[in-house]
This record gives sequence, structure tokens and C-alpha cells, in this order.
Amino acid sequence: MLASMSKIVNHSARRLEIVDACLRVVSRAGLSGATTREIAKEAGVSHGIISHYFNGKNEILRAALQRSYQQLADRIDANLNGLSGAEALQQAVYDALPVDDEGRVGEQIELAFWAYAIGNPELAEERWRSYTEWRRALELLIKGAQAQEHLDGPDPTLVAETIISTLDGLGAQVAMYPDRIPAKRMVEIMNAMLAGFGFVTITNA
Amino acid sequence: MLASMSKIVNHSARRLEIVDACLRVVSRAGLSGATTREIAKEAGVSHGIISHYFNGKNEILRAALQRSYQQLADRIDANLNGLSGAEALQQAVYDALPVDDEGRVGEQIELAFWAYAIGNPELAEERWRSYTEWRRALELLIKGAQAQEHLDGPDPTLVAETIISTLDGLGAQVAMYPDRIPAKRMVEIMNAMLAGFGFVTITNA
Repeated sequence: MLASMSKIVNHSARRLEIVDACLRVVSRAGLSGATTREIAKEAGVSHGIISHYFNGKNEILRAALQRSYQQLADRIDANLNGLSGAEALQQAVYDALPVDDEGRVGEQIELAFWAYAIGNPELAEERWRSYTEWRRALELLIKGAQAQEHLDGPDPTLVAETIISTLDGLGAQVAMYPDRIPAKRMVEIMNAMLAGFGFVTITNA
Repeated sequence: MLASMSKIVNHSARRLEIVDACLRVVSRAGLSGATTREIAKEAGVSHGIISHYFNGKNEILRAALQRSYQQLADRIDANLNGLSGAEALQQAVYDALPVDDEGRVGEQIELAFWAYAIGNPELAEERWRSYTEWRRALELLIKGAQAQEHLDGPDPTLVAETIISTLDGLGAQVAMYPDRIPAKRMVEIMNAMLAGFGFVTITNA
């Protein structure tokens, strides 16, 4: 029993190591450079071992995309602790902005995934799943903020889709021009949008 | 004199044919499939001829990106005829939305260019140039709309950057999920944003 538990734990841990190695390779060499051979090398395992953990390269990429969204979702969740209303919404939006080096590299990975998703239905589905989760999470925050500020519109789904589109567009800009899109400017843009939807925003973030 | 004029005209026409062939190849096979050999084949010219017109593949791609932005700018300009104020702004924003099949394919090309721009400074510069032109054009429309509606804010540049980010984000979504992002929804999102910035919007577009 304990032996088999430890096997499962080791299996998951090793899978995660491979996924994280994949993200590092993608951030360095793009998706076209993320061969299973490169990923194995980066993870410090033999090339043959990869097939014990993943059914082909696309499965690794899908897991990597999942992992990258999960990291973002976890960061947002952690920072929401104790916040409510417009403040919680604003914090979540800030946390989704690629304001540091790590965030900028994340957007480059994301952009590579987008371009790749066009010809890869499985990856596109994985991304769609994460997108709808993110939209639902934002909808809840928007409803909470609207309730607290006694607003009865606009439609929370519409607001969520608008916010995500803008974040995606800013992410693409930052991926291409990391030195030209200041963090402060992204915050100003998101604040202007939140204010336009009727939320009181605090500008000292 | 006439003979040399005709040479120049022919040279330009032939260049344009190659650029348009390049856009067709990119829309069909992505940027990785857009080899000079494929482009020559699509344009119906010999592979060797390409080098008379372009100094390498990157120069063709840069010209293709330029052409694709120019087509968008021309369409927007043509439809602005006779409009002013918020109506002109709204029309320009609608024209930038990928609401038909041609627009959706255009977004797929655009997304491929984005991903490619990360590792290609010349292409990134070309895109930045088009981006700043587009932002300036929007700023003028925003100033006109604000003047007509006696609004004294927010900052037109901020509004322009927000609108472009949202359009870019929607474009990426449409490129990945052409069947899931209805044109009507994109219009609703842009209207909600324009209304948030204080502009009266007409919703029957």
C-alpha cells in the first residue's frame, strides 16, 4: 500500500518536472523548439522515459498550458484572501497583468500557444476550458462588486469577456514589446475600463 | 521615359502580386509554411525571380504585414466618409472587428505574425509602426467624439490603447475559435466599452 502510494506520488512529481521543463524550453526556444528530446534534456531524464509519462508531445504541451493557467489562478486566489467587492475584482485584474519579467515571459509562452492552437484542436480545447473557467471566476467577482456598489448592470458575462479581451490584448503587446508597455500604463488602462463599468477603483496599486 | 515608367509600374505590380501570394500562403499554411518556394509557386513566378523583387523572405513578410494593415486602414477610411463624432469612432471600431470570414482569416495571419515577431526584431518594428499609426488615427477620432459630446476625459491616448487592446484580444479569440465568438457579441463588447468611456453608441450596427 505505502509502496504503491509512493509510486503514484513519484509518478506525479516526475510528470510535473517534465511539464515545468517543457515550459522552460518553450520560453527559451518557442513551441517549435520544444521537441520531446529538448524537454527530456531539460528535465534531466532520458528521451525514452518521456513516453512512460506522456502520450506524445501534444499531451506534454496540453499539460504545460494547463499548468501555466493553474499557476495564474493560484496566484489570483491567494491574493483575494480577505478582499471583497470592487477591491477583489480590481486585485484579480491586477494579478492577471504581466507586470514583471516572469509575467512577460508567460505572455510569450501564451502567444506561442495561441498561434499553435489554430492548427491543433486538442490544445485549442484545453485553452477554451481554461478560458471559460477564468470567465466564470471573473463573473463571480463582477457580481460581487456590482452587488456591493448597488449597480444593476452591465451584464457580468459581457464585462468579464471585455476584461479578458483587454488583458489578452495587453498580454500580446507585452509579449512582443516587453520594454515598451509599462506596468503602470496597463494598470491605468484596466482602471479606466473598470471605472467605465461603474466600479470605484483605487489607483495606488 | 515612358518605357521606364512602365518598368516601374510593372515592378510594383509584380511586387504586390508576390505579397498577396504570401498572404494567401500564410493564411493556408501558417508562417512556417510560407517559404519563398511556396510563395513563388502561389504567385506563378519562378523561385529565382523572387530575389529580383525582395531581399529575402523576411522582407516579403514585412511587406505582407504592411499590406494587411494598409487594407484595414483603407477600409476604415472609406467608411468614415461623411461621419463625425462618436458615430465616426464607433464605425472605425466596427470596421476593425473581424466579423466575417475574411476578417477571421486576417486574424489568424495576424496571430501568426505576432508569434513570429517575438523572435524577429524587423517584423516587430514594422508592426509597432502600424500600431502607432492606428493609435494616432483612433486618438483623432476619440478627440472628435469627445469634443462633439462635450466630454473632457479620459485621456484620448489611454482610450485608444484600451480600444486597441480589446480589439487585439477579440481578434486572438476569433483566430482560435472562429465559430464561437459571434460578431454580435464583439459589437456588444465594443459598445459597452465605448459607453463606459462616455460615448453615446448606436446599437443597430
